[in-house]
Amino acid sequence: MRLYNIDHVGLAVFDLDAALAEYERLYGIRPLYRETVASQDVEEAMLPLGGSFVQLLQPLSKDGPVGRFLERNGEGMHHLAFAVDDIDAALKELAGEGVRLIDQEPRPGGRGAKIAFIHPKTLSGTLVELVELPDDH
Amino acid sequence: MRLYNIDHVGLAVFDLDAALAEYERLYGIRPLYRETVASQDVEEAMLPLGGSFVQLLQPLSKDGPVGRFLERNGEGMHHLAFAVDDIDAALKELAGEGVRLIDQEPRPGGRGAKIAFIHPKTLSGTLVELVELPDDH
Repeated sequence: MRLYNIDHVGLAVFDLDAALAEYERLYGIRPLYRETVASQDVEEAMLPLGGSFVQLLQPLSKDGPVGRFLERNGEGMHHLAFAVDDIDAALKELAGEGVRLIDQEPRPGGRGAKIAFIHPKTLSGTLVELVELPDDH
Repeated sequence: MRLYNIDHVGLAVFDLDAALAEYERLYGIRPLYRETVASQDVEEAMLPLGGSFVQLLQPLSKDGPVGRFLERNGEGMHHLAFAVDDIDAALKELAGEGVRLIDQEPRPGGRGAKIAFIHPKTLSGTLVELVELPDDH
């Protein structure tokens, strides 16, 4: 498997508009994408920075993964996403190494990507997401 | 101020050797730098990924910032670091915007960088570090 980039760092926020306004005011950064991602139960915005993104995630309900995270922890860093060129092969390889996967199969993410989460117990307490971007990205 | 990159994502770990072994075994990534950073009371390793790094931090004592974080939260994502070209100007600008700084002045970080932390209350609960790399980086 080849991880070739930090695709993004996902931050959970209560109020996406307020968080975006602060990023623009303090750092002059505006989102390149903003969309609802049903599979994650979030509205998300992607702030470009170098070859990666800061991803801001506002939950659409209290019952989804980000909604529950916010209830427990408040706002903060939620996950770390690595870009891979073949997510199906990567998941198969990790499963073969005994890694605990949250998603056995990829599901649809933002930007038309295929994504899958790996359990934080695997790698030092960090929730890791794998991302395979579509060819036009 | 211009943030031009995600310099690194800092993860707190109890055992740096064990975490590095897992990154190499599962993802084939090896550290480009490894050093003790006295100002942060840590031993750190930098795993290159695209134009950014995953930084693994093992505290040298229980009383430093990473040691206290681990006691409270266990292993996981600790901070998000943005590269700036002029950290003194950036801190001055943020202070002028009323931002709560942890470091009023830069202090020495790894790789010969100047670093400063911004209070997590500023930006959606995330501990943010600014990094000005030396010219040869």
